[in-house]
Amino acid sequence: MSILVVGSVAFDDVASPSGSVKNILGGAATYFSLAASYFTQVRVVAVVGEDFGAEQEQVFKKRGIDTRGIERAAGKTFRWGGNYSENLNEAKTTFTDLNVFEKFQPRIPREYEDTEFLFLANIQPTLQAEVRRKMHAVRMTGCDTMNYWIQGTPKELRETLKLVDVLLINDTETKMLAGESNLPRAAHKVLAMGPQALVIKHGEYGATIFFREGAFGIGRHPFRAPTLPIEEVKDPTGAGDSFAGGFMGYIASQEQLNREVLKRALFYGGVMGSFAVERFGTERLQALTREEIEERFQVFRELTHLE
Amino acid sequence: MSILVVGSVAFDDVASPSGSVKNILGGAATYFSLAASYFTQVRVVAVVGEDFGAEQEQVFKKRGIDTRGIERAAGKTFRWGGNYSENLNEAKTTFTDLNVFEKFQPRIPREYEDTEFLFLANIQPTLQAEVRRKMHAVRMTGCDTMNYWIQGTPKELRETLKLVDVLLINDTETKMLAGESNLPRAAHKVLAMGPQALVIKHGEYGATIFFREGAFGIGRHPFRAPTLPIEEVKDPTGAGDSFAGGFMGYIASQEQLNREVLKRALFYGGVMGSFAVERFGTERLQALTREEIEERFQVFRELTHLE
Repeated sequence: MSILVVGSVAFDDVASPSGSVKNILGGAATYFSLAASYFTQVRVVAVVGEDFGAEQEQVFKKRGIDTRGIERAAGKTFRWGGNYSENLNEAKTTFTDLNVFEKFQPRIPREYEDTEFLFLANIQPTLQAEVRRKMHAVRMTGCDTMNYWIQGTPKELRETLKLVDVLLINDTETKMLAGESNLPRAAHKVLAMGPQALVIKHGEYGATIFFREGAFGIGRHPFRAPTLPIEEVKDPTGAGDSFAGGFMGYIASQEQLNREVLKRALFYGGVMGSFAVERFGTERLQALTREEIEERFQVFRELTHLE
Repeated sequence: MSILVVGSVAFDDVASPSGSVKNILGGAATYFSLAASYFTQVRVVAVVGEDFGAEQEQVFKKRGIDTRGIERAAGKTFRWGGNYSENLNEAKTTFTDLNVFEKFQPRIPREYEDTEFLFLANIQPTLQAEVRRKMHAVRMTGCDTMNYWIQGTPKELRETLKLVDVLLINDTETKMLAGESNLPRAAHKVLAMGPQALVIKHGEYGATIFFREGAFGIGRHPFRAPTLPIEEVKDPTGAGDSFAGGFMGYIASQEQLNREVLKRALFYGGVMGSFAVERFGTERLQALTREEIEERFQVFRELTHLE
């Protein structure tokens, strides 16, 4: 099955204790589609500027990603700069030049209309909702958002959440969205806003999925996937989008859509996130093998497995 | 098999968003021994003042804990006060009256000398080392410490760590002790100081155990036990000590001392920590059943278990 991601393609400047890079290919849609491409056919809707050339296009093409939905606009591609300090948990944004991304109006190519899985990366909530409403064959919609929209456009975000099956956000965003500091209580409040399931990303501690009662089958409890503690974190940029790519990509590759599939998907999300941070930018995600992915999946599984 | 804990017995004043209590029984040795008492015979070495009466003694006795090592000194018992804000992750200490604990010189009753498992709760590192050196039948020593000793008595702590088999501390303490912000790298540095294994407690995210190469059997990777997200956290005081009690108590109850036992122990640690925080003080730990413990152990297991 194929999956469509709608989101940003960007050029990033990143500095971390491991070094610094400039003008590397980034953006949520880029990390997502590379990670998902190891599991299923990926389609991208995004906007880039005149500085996006054959070299960048090739990064997608080499992974078999359908780029017909990447629109070229007059001007420059979205640019972002960030610094990570020793603890690596949060980037300090040094600059954000939205450029062509400022007027982004997602256009869905006719050839994409039959897509059954959809991921709405972190863009303005009303645009997310518009895209969702245009996709009539969709079986499952994943969605990301951030503090900027939670605080800035709460009404619009609430409307979007009604259209979403799985929301993927982090601890802080969950608490902020719910206005509740206890994580499981906050999770239930978020689920009451619409999503069938909520994936809360805990960074180096893995992720937890909470389900609405009865959603995706039966079960009393949430499910948690750990991640292996990583000694060499070079660049955390894109970890969350790579997580989403592994999670949604694995789901789109499966016949069934049930809790057991979503649990495995949570592990694959962690696996892809852990690969992403090992090198600057998308370097690691460009050249993985399915064998490496399966090997790490087994390591993650054993990490919490009692005999 | 029996286990000896050496540490504080205290009276606590605690305030959290769920309410407040005054003069309740607390202290590391108290939480530890109650949690461990569900698995094995527990012995306590501690000091209390004249305000420690029959009521407090009964809390230990009811759980079959051997209190012959609790010394009565002239004066008042150690008193601590703390406030938890909304996020509950860290207590703001409102007062610390060491009282009789200030001159604590652990005395090991002759009847305790055959104890095979030892837990050195958070006290001055030189006292910890002295206790360890007096115990000649010990098969395994667990140890806790805190930022106060890591920064204040680093040389003494280093000497103690050479005598310890398993150190149980949190993320911040691990990074501080190692002088290294990456957690797995910090873990390896701490293991190089002496312990065979290091248990890093992540609070609501569970715990990870790192092993020295070859320690407790073979294995390439660390192991991680999750905890169930808890909706009703009333009082986080003693969670870490209850974790240690479940962890060490389970180990002491087993014939073998290998990685599989330590992995299960990590789950039991999480289970006991999760019970502790559900009520103020030791209330929940005083009246558990082994069935409740096993039931939660299964829930924790299923929390990350793929079919």
